[in-house]
Amino acid sequence: MKIKIGLLRVLTLKDGKPDHFHHENVIESNFPDLKVVSRSIEDQYEGIYDEETEKKAIPKIIELGKKMGKEDIEALIVDCAADPGVGELRKIVKIPVIGAGSSSASLALAYGSRIATMGIRGDAPKIMKKVLGRHLVCAVKPGGVKTALDLMTEEGKKNSIIAVTDLYKENIDVIALACTGYAALGIDSELEKAAGVPVVNALVAAGLFAWYRTMKKNSSVKYFQ
Amino acid sequence: MKIKIGLLRVLTLKDGKPDHFHHENVIESNFPDLKVVSRSIEDQYEGIYDEETEKKAIPKIIELGKKMGKEDIEALIVDCAADPGVGELRKIVKIPVIGAGSSSASLALAYGSRIATMGIRGDAPKIMKKVLGRHLVCAVKPGGVKTALDLMTEEGKKNSIIAVTDLYKENIDVIALACTGYAALGIDSELEKAAGVPVVNALVAAGLFAWYRTMKKNSSVKYFQ
Repeated sequence: MKIKIGLLRVLTLKDGKPDHFHHENVIESNFPDLKVVSRSIEDQYEGIYDEETEKKAIPKIIELGKKMGKEDIEALIVDCAADPGVGELRKIVKIPVIGAGSSSASLALAYGSRIATMGIRGDAPKIMKKVLGRHLVCAVKPGGVKTALDLMTEEGKKNSIIAVTDLYKENIDVIALACTGYAALGIDSELEKAAGVPVVNALVAAGLFAWYRTMKKNSSVKYFQ
Repeated sequence: MKIKIGLLRVLTLKDGKPDHFHHENVIESNFPDLKVVSRSIEDQYEGIYDEETEKKAIPKIIELGKKMGKEDIEALIVDCAADPGVGELRKIVKIPVIGAGSSSASLALAYGSRIATMGIRGDAPKIMKKVLGRHLVCAVKPGGVKTALDLMTEEGKKNSIIAVTDLYKENIDVIALACTGYAALGIDSELEKAAGVPVVNALVAAGLFAWYRTMKKNSSVKYFQ
């Protein structure tokens, strides 16, 4: 039986949304043991892309996360690399709460020690700075990109590849993506090839940790504790 | 087809070794996609448990890791929470090199921000301090334990449970195990119950990251990049 987890989207989805908005599919394809229930906060059609939009979203995330925590799910992923509301929700809900930003940073630390972030803001999200500490070498963003929606264009993809290619000067050994908008673009392989180092997808990282935590609990495998 | 990875043991195994020394089984049981090839360094029957034994082991680890890097494996785990030789090997071998210490610390960061380590030394391994940064709240070790071998006794297990129970005073939210000797004890559930917070098993964490990195490369799943 599949394990049901929740995905809290910080981008309000309109009807007729294109396929690449289906983050639940990204997680389910990578971790077939999981069934993902996705819910969006209201009235943030461009998601979170600066201090103001983050501030506006947090109370909505906490409210929605509280509701989702009472549903029939075993873990909750907050689908934003700034981890908005994650700290607060961990104190409120009884299931594990996993943030895409801390996940991306954590997974990067397993593969190297000189880490760059690439997101949609000029700076790395605070939570990623906090987790990466002195391992954060630099933070980049693709030219012309302001919101996650801008990544979805051909130009957004092209500029993302240019941005990671430019990172060769920094002698980094891992890139941690700092926006979950990259999750469904399907360009991680191209990014890795252009960068020459592993690229960590923030949403898939969160999926990995949700999978591990819930599987561990449900496993009958002797060594899975 | 299974993906073959290497496991570099820092504890020399004698003939007639007991079952709980079989770390390869721990990884294979948890990640059935993996086939683990295990090799030990020579002449360290008590493993690594202080500065001196670590210093003695490092050249042997680098030599063995170099050899293993030429074998038919897709990733290499160094099976010690001090990550001895990991930084050096990453520069030498062409496959991903994963350390159990950085893995334990990284996985802990995905689940919380106030983290305690429990190992066999009074202090956390340097690499875990480096990865955890200011998230490391305290480091404990069970009473009476000096080497990984001491964990394998009934007293070692009992004292490990006492040590995590005592952590309630520190208001931590995750425990990262800081010795791979805990891997095969089968007491993680008991530790979690006693501590009331998630306990990260360093060897299983390394297995998770090796699995993810190699599966990702070999997957035909659309979203696994």
